[in-house]
Amino acid sequence: MTLSTTPRSTVKRGKKRAVTERAALHAVLDAGLVCHLAVVVDGAPVVLPTGYGRDGDTLYLHGSTGARTLREAGAGVPVSVAVTLLDGVVYARSVFDHSMNYRCAVVHGVAVPVLEVDAKAHALRVLTEHLSPGSWDYARQPSPRELAATAVLALDLAEASVKIRTGPPSDEDAVASSGVWAGVLPVRTIYGAPEPCPLLAEGTAVPEHVSGRR
Amino acid sequence: MTLSTTPRSTVKRGKKRAVTERAALHAVLDAGLVCHLAVVVDGAPVVLPTGYGRDGDTLYLHGSTGARTLREAGAGVPVSVAVTLLDGVVYARSVFDHSMNYRCAVVHGVAVPVLEVDAKAHALRVLTEHLSPGSWDYARQPSPRELAATAVLALDLAEASVKIRTGPPSDEDAVASSGVWAGVLPVRTIYGAPEPCPLLAEGTAVPEHVSGRR
Repeated sequence: MTLSTTPRSTVKRGKKRAVTERAALHAVLDAGLVCHLAVVVDGAPVVLPTGYGRDGDTLYLHGSTGARTLREAGAGVPVSVAVTLLDGVVYARSVFDHSMNYRCAVVHGVAVPVLEVDAKAHALRVLTEHLSPGSWDYARQPSPRELAATAVLALDLAEASVKIRTGPPSDEDAVASSGVWAGVLPVRTIYGAPEPCPLLAEGTAVPEHVSGRR
Repeated sequence: MTLSTTPRSTVKRGKKRAVTERAALHAVLDAGLVCHLAVVVDGAPVVLPTGYGRDGDTLYLHGSTGARTLREAGAGVPVSVAVTLLDGVVYARSVFDHSMNYRCAVVHGVAVPVLEVDAKAHALRVLTEHLSPGSWDYARQPSPRELAATAVLALDLAEASVKIRTGPPSDEDAVASSGVWAGVLPVRTIYGAPEPCPLLAEGTAVPEHVSGRR
């Protein structure tokens, strides 16, 4: 299944980096942890980082019911969401051809508040399992009061684009400037050793869904 | 020096995470490599990742002169730019108190195109030295044609906010649920081993500004 080709989701710059497979969209969204949500507030754009989760072709966002940006984003207005993964710094023979290797998904649409209790609990499960796989069944699940204090938005992935850059520099000076090093410095995101909460009872074991996370 | 407190740059949610030192803003911007730029196009927000660089209280953004979003962003309209660094996944005893440790800077303003040749070259030096410190003096610097093909925007850092979360979970269940592990799984971004361009002449040494980058 291929991605939509509405005017604003059709990649115009760097077409060779555009990827039109829906599976690629899912893969980029599943690989990230933080998205950037943009919404128009009082005529000006506001962009903020937030957590997210994906279920099929629905992207869930959440936050406090008191957060104005989230409230604005759920008021039937257009929003834009980007998830970007940086994979490398591309060093070329020329400054001009320096670049980054990355994977980026951008979604456009109208976010819909998830209000019904079962649907909201499902969305929070999806969000939790994206941020911290294994936590939904391990930790205490949300109380009715906590559910009510959480605003959840659902955004359809119908209108989206994906751009991916991989590989060595595309360098016009490749032959001319022999002796100048060029290549890619990979950028990787890794997890460190778990840091227990200071209030934890002595000897509380780190569960496998935390210690085994890669 | 403290950050501005215009209505939209005043942190309302999570005030305890707001940081009002200008040095903190600079530190977050200097630590990131990718920003997310939001601009309003045809009434809808568009958010895209892009490289950036900082010189004092000026943030530079750049891209191809053909890129529509960048052109729109330089047309005297309000823009919003966010730089987010993810530092950890916060596991709490309750799903509700799960969180992330992060540093985030958000800048609001009107971006101004940098057109004058010397000013543009300076901005590109700042951008290059942010993406790849050492490359400006090592690689071939931009030709007049390359300068002309690059659009550069300058955004004043006057109106900005910083939010930082660090430390263990803030967990209402801290005492009640003994036996449930809670803590932080640190997230770190590291550089891998440099991958030489396949077209490189045999034996070309990796320069120290690449091999020594941390």
